[in-house]
Amino acid sequence: MPVYKAPLKDFQFILNSFLPVNDYAEVEGFNDALELSEPVLEAAAQLCEEVLFPLNQSGDKQGLLYKDGEVTTPKGFKQAYQAYCEGGWSGFTCAAEYGGQGLPEFLNMCVMEMACSANLSFGLTPGLSHGAYNALFSHASDALKNQYLPKLVSGQWSGVMCLTEPQAGTDLGLIRTKAEPQPDGTYTLTGGKIFISSGEHDLTQNILHLVLARLPNAPLGTKGISLFLAPKFLLDEAGNPAQHNHFRCEGIEHKMGLSASPTCVMNYDGATAYLVGEPHKGMSAMFTMMNSARIYVGLQGLGIAEVAYQNALAYAKERLQSRALTGAKQPDQPADSIIHHPDVKRMLLTMQAFTEGGRALAMLTAFHSDLAKRHPDNFVRQDADDFVQLMTPIVKAYLTDMGTEVSNLAVQVYGGYGYIREYGIEQYVRDARIAQIYEGTNGVQALDLVFRKLSLHNGRYLRSFFHATDTFITQQAENPAMQEFIKPLAKYIGYLRQATLYIATAGLKNPDDAAASATEYLRLFALVVFAWIWAKQASLALGKEKDVFYQEKIRVARFYFAKILPQGIGLLQSITVPAKVLE
Amino acid sequence: MPVYKAPLKDFQFILNSFLPVNDYAEVEGFNDALELSEPVLEAAAQLCEEVLFPLNQSGDKQGLLYKDGEVTTPKGFKQAYQAYCEGGWSGFTCAAEYGGQGLPEFLNMCVMEMACSANLSFGLTPGLSHGAYNALFSHASDALKNQYLPKLVSGQWSGVMCLTEPQAGTDLGLIRTKAEPQPDGTYTLTGGKIFISSGEHDLTQNILHLVLARLPNAPLGTKGISLFLAPKFLLDEAGNPAQHNHFRCEGIEHKMGLSASPTCVMNYDGATAYLVGEPHKGMSAMFTMMNSARIYVGLQGLGIAEVAYQNALAYAKERLQSRALTGAKQPDQPADSIIHHPDVKRMLLTMQAFTEGGRALAMLTAFHSDLAKRHPDNFVRQDADDFVQLMTPIVKAYLTDMGTEVSNLAVQVYGGYGYIREYGIEQYVRDARIAQIYEGTNGVQALDLVFRKLSLHNGRYLRSFFHATDTFITQQAENPAMQEFIKPLAKYIGYLRQATLYIATAGLKNPDDAAASATEYLRLFALVVFAWIWAKQASLALGKEKDVFYQEKIRVARFYFAKILPQGIGLLQSITVPAKVLE
Repeated sequence: MPVYKAPLKDFQFILNSFLPVNDYAEVEGFNDALELSEPVLEAAAQLCEEVLFPLNQSGDKQGLLYKDGEVTTPKGFKQAYQAYCEGGWSGFTCAAEYGGQGLPEFLNMCVMEMACSANLSFGLTPGLSHGAYNALFSHASDALKNQYLPKLVSGQWSGVMCLTEPQAGTDLGLIRTKAEPQPDGTYTLTGGKIFISSGEHDLTQNILHLVLARLPNAPLGTKGISLFLAPKFLLDEAGNPAQHNHFRCEGIEHKMGLSASPTCVMNYDGATAYLVGEPHKGMSAMFTMMNSARIYVGLQGLGIAEVAYQNALAYAKERLQSRALTGAKQPDQPADSIIHHPDVKRMLLTMQAFTEGGRALAMLTAFHSDLAKRHPDNFVRQDADDFVQLMTPIVKAYLTDMGTEVSNLAVQVYGGYGYIREYGIEQYVRDARIAQIYEGTNGVQALDLVFRKLSLHNGRYLRSFFHATDTFITQQAENPAMQEFIKPLAKYIGYLRQATLYIATAGLKNPDDAAASATEYLRLFALVVFAWIWAKQASLALGKEKDVFYQEKIRVARFYFAKILPQGIGLLQSITVPAKVLE
Repeated sequence: MPVYKAPLKDFQFILNSFLPVNDYAEVEGFNDALELSEPVLEAAAQLCEEVLFPLNQSGDKQGLLYKDGEVTTPKGFKQAYQAYCEGGWSGFTCAAEYGGQGLPEFLNMCVMEMACSANLSFGLTPGLSHGAYNALFSHASDALKNQYLPKLVSGQWSGVMCLTEPQAGTDLGLIRTKAEPQPDGTYTLTGGKIFISSGEHDLTQNILHLVLARLPNAPLGTKGISLFLAPKFLLDEAGNPAQHNHFRCEGIEHKMGLSASPTCVMNYDGATAYLVGEPHKGMSAMFTMMNSARIYVGLQGLGIAEVAYQNALAYAKERLQSRALTGAKQPDQPADSIIHHPDVKRMLLTMQAFTEGGRALAMLTAFHSDLAKRHPDNFVRQDADDFVQLMTPIVKAYLTDMGTEVSNLAVQVYGGYGYIREYGIEQYVRDARIAQIYEGTNGVQALDLVFRKLSLHNGRYLRSFFHATDTFITQQAENPAMQEFIKPLAKYIGYLRQATLYIATAGLKNPDDAAASATEYLRLFALVVFAWIWAKQASLALGKEKDVFYQEKIRVARFYFAKILPQGIGLLQSITVPAKVLE
């Protein structure tokens, strides 16, 4: 049976040492976050370890029941959801005026990561509600907000995003769902949506569907899409769920993984809906919440990687097979633990480098998104937002690629047992896989990086990264112990600059040239970001090696620089190949 | 619904142009193979496309039924197995004296690849029978061979390999199953085995278990293991299955994939068995057939890659999403086919480069194994066997890694639909995954390459490869059209030599240093082997570009050199890092 223990010590290291939270103690909520972090994260850890995690394998095995438009979640999910809401986790970062706790996103990242590790199928429902909250909070009228937000914050109701149609996946411009204005100011929705996660379930009293649709005579393409709120149950005058709205779940998909998360086919058959934001501005309303949604998907990769790593590590210590090459390590046993075999160590260190590096990156990005929302100074806000914009496709794509890679490595460490369902490890591979696809495939993330994030505001986003790394390199220039990291970091930043120049120049001449190398460019960028993050972690750990936690940080940093970062050299070479090679 | 068409044109290209079969026309069976190849492969293709393939998805969905020690295979499998045997495929390469057709392995590779593409779960049973045939043919007494081989060759009976025990996976030295000699010259087996593929099923009248076990007072470790034959039904005097032997399938595993292939827990409770080969020489008997078994597992990765690629290609041509970056390609449609997007092209070409390159490599290796068995000249036999020894871990590890990678790319091309079971693509990811683990994990393959294949006979195996590549480079030195391939090939062979020198020197001083880089070394070796193979394919295609088949060969070769081979530079750098970095 798999195990899971929340990585509380690493969270505290990132919160207290890696992130510059203390430098911004004046920002609303930051001090609270630091002060509350220990009890809050311990409480979240307990919920995740003891309530959500034990339902992960049973939920996968039992799956969902669909009958007559209704979906029954696996045994224990209802009680777990209630415990989640009672703990206040559904309103963790939400505004106090709607009953939330107003805590920063960087602290929420820890909670979300733990939920993803413990039970990703479960975590999707509150995760999507949080996205729906953000969309309504930023774009809905006060009337809608007052009616719907408090119960979304309390978790009594959930919210979902309804974008995809069979012919409109990546290309939302092809959406056909229609919205007809009614004399009373409402709209009626007609059309079908697919792949709607948590579109129907039995966890909450109401489900708020945020639906992209076209008004009559809307312009073609993405500029003619509007956003609507269609609750499963329309509210009566007291604001309570009453009449069932005219939409229905027509079925659920049978998937590779996430078997306890309902992926719904929805049919809107004259459903009553309310416009959210301006007509035809649905895509931009979606995009304001897209960054946080994409970072959350990156976190799914991270969460799965963490739990997969923990299990592989535990198994490698326990499983006895063959003798170490340099002589018996456990002579009293029939064989040595496989952790003594260098190739197993290599796999475990790869997993650890991705997981701890990914955590630091996700929290750093969330920290900047908090700054971008909360800091009083315009300039700081903009600078922080630039960093978030740039990192979002990297967090989404690289962390989900790593979720798949790390869970596959866990299966490899387990050997044949990894392939057997009962041991619970192959589930991580199946659950992790979708995160590379939804919320914009990883190929789309690479195009976002290359065609939007590099060029917007004349490359300003990019400067936010190079400025941060240059500052760090300058700070460490005189530190002899850091030279083993600083020198290669500077070299690879040079490679990244070279690649960026090529992409920018080539892309201007022929966009296909930039697109042909976009995935490799994102990968190189991610490798360099991780190098910076590992060098930073090493700089915080040096001198503290007596504590094994810090010793490990230095060990993993060295491993990363020696064994993973060199992938970047080959990438630089493939990036500079024009698209002609694909013809 | 997935599609599959056997790659007959590529088979013929490899048989008639890529492999030097004609240069060895005097070798027994080679001429027959060339002459028969068209009708034979067409017949095999028909069976695979029309009989095996349609059962792949339904078999996965239905799975197996275990009850009271018996296993029922999914609907249609029995009839399909009968058709397989009636076509003569079970005895394709077997000796004529036992009813086989004596055809060479290189032709059999095509048949096996098609079976793996069409239905891997189905293919395991005849695949394992073939392994059992080889073990008995090489090591059993004439009496046993006469009793058991004819029906193994006809497919009326099947055979399985029983190695793994719960405490003894990679480390077979820990095997505990006991064999007690009986006065009548037979033995009784007592013990349990796990992960026994096809250990029990309803496809054949009898199942021959080849079991590794220990004789009384056997030396510890792998030097005390003997090989036994224990048939499910003991034979009566007429040689027909009669009394049920004292062993039983205690259950089957529920796995990530290969759901239609029974993975059995076996219990031998005083089972009657016959010694195969010498006492205590069971491991070496196993090893004589290990090479072909490992190449067959590599072929499983290749087979899955091929069918996954075919489907991704078909879907990419059909699925309309977004406009091409350089302007509409299908202006009469609402969007362009995704094959017009460079990142999708990149994925498809990656798949094609691995699949066609892997096929050429597998068939080249099989061709050498045929030479090693059939050529009259000792020296040629030895030289060919050297090549097979060297390539076996590469074929097994790299082709199965690619099976997983290519099937994951197919899911990515399909987007959300790739994750839904109904579309049949995610099954390839689940089915392919085990091939990286069984028959020696890919980490074990890397250790085999580094610690056995490099050093045995003072590096003679390695010279067989460098000799072949050097000859090729010399031949092409004056060919201007080939310089774009020859120059980088020579450069990367230089990298491989550098890496080999490091591994050999480091491994002598500290085996951990060689082991720490073994996986990366195998990967670099595979990349260079593929570079040679793609350069060779390009050399055969140049000048024939009017035929789109050859044009594609050159296109894929260029893509491989530009976009995949550069991974080797980073690998060289990580290989030369000592094991200390793992401490």
